[in-house]
Amino acid sequence: MIGACGGVASTVALGVAALRKRLISATGLVTELPLFNQTGLIKPGSIVIGGHEIRSQPLVDAVDALHSHANLFDRKLVKMCATQLQAWQRNIRCGTLCGAGPVIRGLADKGSRKEDRSPAEAVERIAADIAAFRRRHRLDHAVVINLASSEPPAAKTAAQARFRDLQRALSRPGSRVLPTSSLYALAAVEAGCAFINFTPSLGISVPAIQERAGQLGVPYMGNDGKTGESLVKSVLAPMFAMRNLSVLSWVGQNILGNRDGAVLKDPRTRLSKIRSKDKMLSQIIGSKPATAVSIEYVPSLDDWKVAWDFIHFEGFLGTKMSMQFVWQGADSVLAAPLIIDLTRLAARECRAGRGGPMRHLACFFKDPIGVREHNMFTQWQRLAEHIARQ
Amino acid sequence: MIGACGGVASTVALGVAALRKRLISATGLVTELPLFNQTGLIKPGSIVIGGHEIRSQPLVDAVDALHSHANLFDRKLVKMCATQLQAWQRNIRCGTLCGAGPVIRGLADKGSRKEDRSPAEAVERIAADIAAFRRRHRLDHAVVINLASSEPPAAKTAAQARFRDLQRALSRPGSRVLPTSSLYALAAVEAGCAFINFTPSLGISVPAIQERAGQLGVPYMGNDGKTGESLVKSVLAPMFAMRNLSVLSWVGQNILGNRDGAVLKDPRTRLSKIRSKDKMLSQIIGSKPATAVSIEYVPSLDDWKVAWDFIHFEGFLGTKMSMQFVWQGADSVLAAPLIIDLTRLAARECRAGRGGPMRHLACFFKDPIGVREHNMFTQWQRLAEHIARQ
Amino acid sequence: MIGACGGVASTVALGVAALRKRLISATGLVTELPLFNQTGLIKPGSIVIGGHEIRSQPLVDAVDALHSHANLFDRKLVKMCATQLQAWQRNIRCGTLCGAGPVIRGLADKGSRKEDRSPAEAVERIAADIAAFRRRHRLDHAVVINLASSEPPAAKTAAQARFRDLQRALSRPGSRVLPTSSLYALAAVEAGCAFINFTPSLGISVPAIQERAGQLGVPYMGNDGKTGESLVKSVLAPMFAMRNLSVLSWVGQNILGNRDGAVLKDPRTRLSKIRSKDKMLSQIIGSKPATAVSIEYVPSLDDWKVAWDFIHFEGFLGTKMSMQFVWQGADSVLAAPLIIDLTRLAARECRAGRGGPMRHLACFFKDPIGVREHNMFTQWQRLAEHIARQ
Amino acid sequence: MIGACGGVASTVALGVAALRKRLISATGLVTELPLFNQTGLIKPGSIVIGGHEIRSQPLVDAVDALHSHANLFDRKLVKMCATQLQAWQRNIRCGTLCGAGPVIRGLADKGSRKEDRSPAEAVERIAADIAAFRRRHRLDHAVVINLASSEPPAAKTAAQARFRDLQRALSRPGSRVLPTSSLYALAAVEAGCAFINFTPSLGISVPAIQERAGQLGVPYMGNDGKTGESLVKSVLAPMFAMRNLSVLSWVGQNILGNRDGAVLKDPRTRLSKIRSKDKMLSQIIGSKPATAVSIEYVPSLDDWKVAWDFIHFEGFLGTKMSMQFVWQGADSVLAAPLIIDLTRLAARECRAGRGGPMRHLACFFKDPIGVREHNMFTQWQRLAEHIARQ
Repeated sequence: MIGACGGVASTVALGVAALRKRLISATGLVTELPLFNQTGLIKPGSIVIGGHEIRSQPLVDAVDALHSHANLFDRKLVKMCATQLQAWQRNIRCGTLCGAGPVIRGLADKGSRKEDRSPAEAVERIAADIAAFRRRHRLDHAVVINLASSEPPAAKTAAQARFRDLQRALSRPGSRVLPTSSLYALAAVEAGCAFINFTPSLGISVPAIQERAGQLGVPYMGNDGKTGESLVKSVLAPMFAMRNLSVLSWVGQNILGNRDGAVLKDPRTRLSKIRSKDKMLSQIIGSKPATAVSIEYVPSLDDWKVAWDFIHFEGFLGTKMSMQFVWQGADSVLAAPLIIDLTRLAARECRAGRGGPMRHLACFFKDPIGVREHNMFTQWQRLAEHIARQ
Repeated sequence: MIGACGGVASTVALGVAALRKRLISATGLVTELPLFNQTGLIKPGSIVIGGHEIRSQPLVDAVDALHSHANLFDRKLVKMCATQLQAWQRNIRCGTLCGAGPVIRGLADKGSRKEDRSPAEAVERIAADIAAFRRRHRLDHAVVINLASSEPPAAKTAAQARFRDLQRALSRPGSRVLPTSSLYALAAVEAGCAFINFTPSLGISVPAIQERAGQLGVPYMGNDGKTGESLVKSVLAPMFAMRNLSVLSWVGQNILGNRDGAVLKDPRTRLSKIRSKDKMLSQIIGSKPATAVSIEYVPSLDDWKVAWDFIHFEGFLGTKMSMQFVWQGADSVLAAPLIIDLTRLAARECRAGRGGPMRHLACFFKDPIGVREHNMFTQWQRLAEHIARQ
Repeated sequence: MIGACGGVASTVALGVAALRKRLISATGLVTELPLFNQTGLIKPGSIVIGGHEIRSQPLVDAVDALHSHANLFDRKLVKMCATQLQAWQRNIRCGTLCGAGPVIRGLADKGSRKEDRSPAEAVERIAADIAAFRRRHRLDHAVVINLASSEPPAAKTAAQARFRDLQRALSRPGSRVLPTSSLYALAAVEAGCAFINFTPSLGISVPAIQERAGQLGVPYMGNDGKTGESLVKSVLAPMFAMRNLSVLSWVGQNILGNRDGAVLKDPRTRLSKIRSKDKMLSQIIGSKPATAVSIEYVPSLDDWKVAWDFIHFEGFLGTKMSMQFVWQGADSVLAAPLIIDLTRLAARECRAGRGGPMRHLACFFKDPIGVREHNMFTQWQRLAEHIARQ
Repeated sequence: MIGACGGVASTVALGVAALRKRLISATGLVTELPLFNQTGLIKPGSIVIGGHEIRSQPLVDAVDALHSHANLFDRKLVKMCATQLQAWQRNIRCGTLCGAGPVIRGLADKGSRKEDRSPAEAVERIAADIAAFRRRHRLDHAVVINLASSEPPAAKTAAQARFRDLQRALSRPGSRVLPTSSLYALAAVEAGCAFINFTPSLGISVPAIQERAGQLGVPYMGNDGKTGESLVKSVLAPMFAMRNLSVLSWVGQNILGNRDGAVLKDPRTRLSKIRSKDKMLSQIIGSKPATAVSIEYVPSLDDWKVAWDFIHFEGFLGTKMSMQFVWQGADSVLAAPLIIDLTRLAARECRAGRGGPMRHLACFFKDPIGVREHNMFTQWQRLAEHIARQ
């Protein structure tokens, strides 16, 4: 995991440790639904946790903070898993700041961050870390998942088009041809590992890196996990479509208090998130309603996110009506089980030797790579078909 | 239409008149979605309106009342359609009070209600009315749709099991073997017309009447139109299921101000509605959350209905989270286009000579006859497959 | 405290213990606002906890349950206060079941309840317990606060009118002339202690008991603490009044999961609560809007209460508009500091030798004894004036 | 009225016309509450409407547009008042664009706007218009109320400090020493008429103009009418204060679809509105919670405004709880009766010969001139005292 000690990643670690010890139920794990019985998925308890991180807070402290600030998890559970988390802590390596902007740099702790001399060197170092991790634990497969803080929208450059050009650009010290998230993506690919971008950052959405993934037969997917408000949107919007109700406006206000929120105080980063959130409606509904998505940082909420959506729609005979919803969820807790699901599903592709975009995983993402379909149900059906077929 | 001058029925009449004159768009009409192109549906403008009613308020007045009390419809539209509504008024016959309880009797106006001597006589009279209407207007098919006020839950009797026994029981003056809604259902069947029950009343959910419909090759469907809160539930509940989130409780409060609401003040009638609303959750979710559905009559809302639903759910690592929604819709306006859709789709079955339950129309109903599936998307897919196939 | 180990009472105990050790801030304590500086109130930390209880769960366990089920309190705080709670546990005596209905009887544990031979004997025993408690701890004053589960509405009887008649009636074994809450009220009065009824039960709203309180110069107040939805109502309703907006309807849905909720499953008990909640609107607004208050028991919420209120109102030129609010509060935590406030304020009256209804405390109650004013601000002003004057 | 044909002003005109003909009730009029009986207020029906406007849409059309787009008013009422509105139309003069920014200029219609040569000339022309209006209708008093679109925050300049310096600066052609709203304020003062600023624009909040008002004995008040979300805030915030609950965060999202909303699309103008909205909380609560106020333009809402507020607060023992509210109001309808109230109350001051800030009217404004108190109830009490006293 990239951002290995953040809210989501530390919750993933706690969850895997708890599943290992059979301390918790399967609630929240998609891949534990009957649909996935006997489809040859690895056991969640067999997953080994590792990653990269630029901050120095250990996993155990991150989990403790979520417990005491946001009232998450049972304290006994945290205690019973602490030894495991400490063991996994040794699998976490220094992240890179190559390609990072000032907001991310501001989060980094001395001793945890690495200023690699060139992007190419960063990629090489990270790929070597991943390979070593895999060898050390004798893992069949490794899945690299980006859970680091969102980056601002990245500039598209000519060198991103072809792998050959990209390689050349990356070797120049100080080159900013790729944002950090894409360096991790390339490192994963070069290490022959599946890559998943659970954030709205650029990640593997770079033609040259996808070209390279194709050459090496590496499966990948992203972008931006569909965990809360967007998930609701992707089932509600089809409802309006199926009843031929005309959505006039859809306004969403998101307030959140975790590091994700703090990073989103930066207007450029926020833009990246908002764009990702705003894409799906038109595709599902067919028309283009007026939309407005706001994100506000409200520190007192800690890891909790509250979203209010107001939907103004027109029905028969020109009648205007409305619907509102309020979503109150703990972000890390919503995301963590999906990370475990994606790991299991990606490992399955690795074992089958299938590279390229895992389009059947679209239902996990706000902005799925290579998929225009945002209707949750159609996406779900595609996943079911893929699972049944292969 | 049974209850031909009620809120829904008069809105249907206004809508059909407006579609005839091309005064309104297709918004709200499911059967105008691209899916239904070239599937041989009759034109909405070709529908002729008629029905039975126990109250004396004319269609034009009913529409006017909705406009002035609930702020529905454009006044110009109402004016331009008034002549047509007056013409259709002549197709409305006296309803029966046979089998009706005190609440419904309280709504009836002298001169509009009929006290038939026996249920059998009521059935015969209504069937004759329908047949005459069909002849007079030279209609290929007639579709009888129950839009009358909800009845209390009806007693199940032995005579309801077989058509032969039912016939005998019906001929006894004063027999209460069937509630009014089922007398209409039987009359429709005897007249060889499709029957649709858009209310939670018993209607055609009587084995003996379904037996008779089978004999005569009559298509039918029900019960209780899925127009607002239940529609939302049927897309939201699958979302929780697909994410393996455990719904702990689902509480719904419905407030409404129209005649439907006034009738629901009667606790027995309300029970009938609440049962219909409460069925779907367990089927979709798999488990049985704590549920509580309330309905309150709030006269100031007129035809508007406001529903608040609170959903308490558990996610990964035992974390409790919640979602709420508020639905603010005009009941008649939400229901009316579906009546037109059901008419078109039922007429298509009639033309194809297909009798029996129209299970492919499950997505229109809260409690679909012969269908256990409540997931809106699965229901929709079945409709799409039926349309594609036939 | 009557119901000394319930959710509210155990939170009070925890709070007083924590205030004693200066572990928490004054947040939530009304009497710590600047208004009350130098008004001679006792220190919250000087309060000694005791009471009566019919269940056997100790205070520490009750607090633990609130922590683990409803996610309330910091675990460290609970630990640091445990010794104090155990010490206070020794001040808790068996409650009486005299006058209790089947719902309350169902909650009682063997060993904790007492079946006194007659109501008079129960009163005597309880009064003796209180007096002993006061002597043992050398307390200047004792304040008896009813926090026990709500009772169904009590029958009014002739014997409740005069103390002489009441006395006679109480001495008859098996007499049901008073519900349990009123027996406690009388016991407090007889012991010369202030009595406060924080529930909708009858308590001290019995003329004969008030007559006796007058004789003995005992101050008292109630009924039903204004902690959540009702508090909001009592500031919002004046807003509509001050703007001359006409409230058409006010609908409230309350869902809660604690013992209070379980008791309210009983429709008769619920009625008592709903009546108390429904009184205030007309008084504040002047007119009588349509109201509907529902209460549903939703076990998964534990000590949390969620209330949704929908207010339909008419403005200038006959325009209908609406407002909704959702209140999500932890019941025990909202009530507990008010109990401490009322104790301090009642003790002040005791010291000043002022008996009778403490009307200046109306702002703490849904249904204040001897006060018709429900406007929170007017009530507050009266409290401020009383404090300033005396 | 400045902005005499806008949504609010045209609703005022319709309302006054309807009151004249006794077609509507007093609902929404504060000054028709019993408190104001026999306080010598002018009759609402005796008010004569006039004003300045830069757009060419007549009053009747403005009212029609509100009816057909936003579903406001009864059509019959509009018809019965049309003649009166047309008569008043003749009292409307060309507004000035002096001091206006590009957003406002974009709204102006040729023929309705005036490009005065210097601010001084604009002031003189407007003052003359007002004086002529007053003479023509033989009015005892005239009250000038600014209802024009919000301006961006205005720069403070040295010349605004003293009337002498201001006069000099205004006579320079092209001078931008005052925004348009302040030119109107000065014109009103020079014409000896009361001035009220119902918008967040600068208006009379200029020391030099207030100095002049003092010289001429002119009463004035502002700024920014308290009509919806802010009104609710000013009763809810005191509730938290009175219960010593600590407000951690208060987030508000406002969505609206009228011209006000369109103008607020301009980020600078929006800032002016948001500042005005954000002031009150800290004053009432005492502490400074995290706040975030957003305003979004949602055209489909027309004159309707929907506000969602989320309040995160801490109670006893550090427990975090929350409250939300949703306000759905028609902006013009909420503001219009307050304009009539302010006119009556200002006329009363004029008659009594009292000049200067009318601080007793603070309860009508988001940001009351010369008043730090935002608690609605304290403000209300001040009004009641003023009325009783004088």
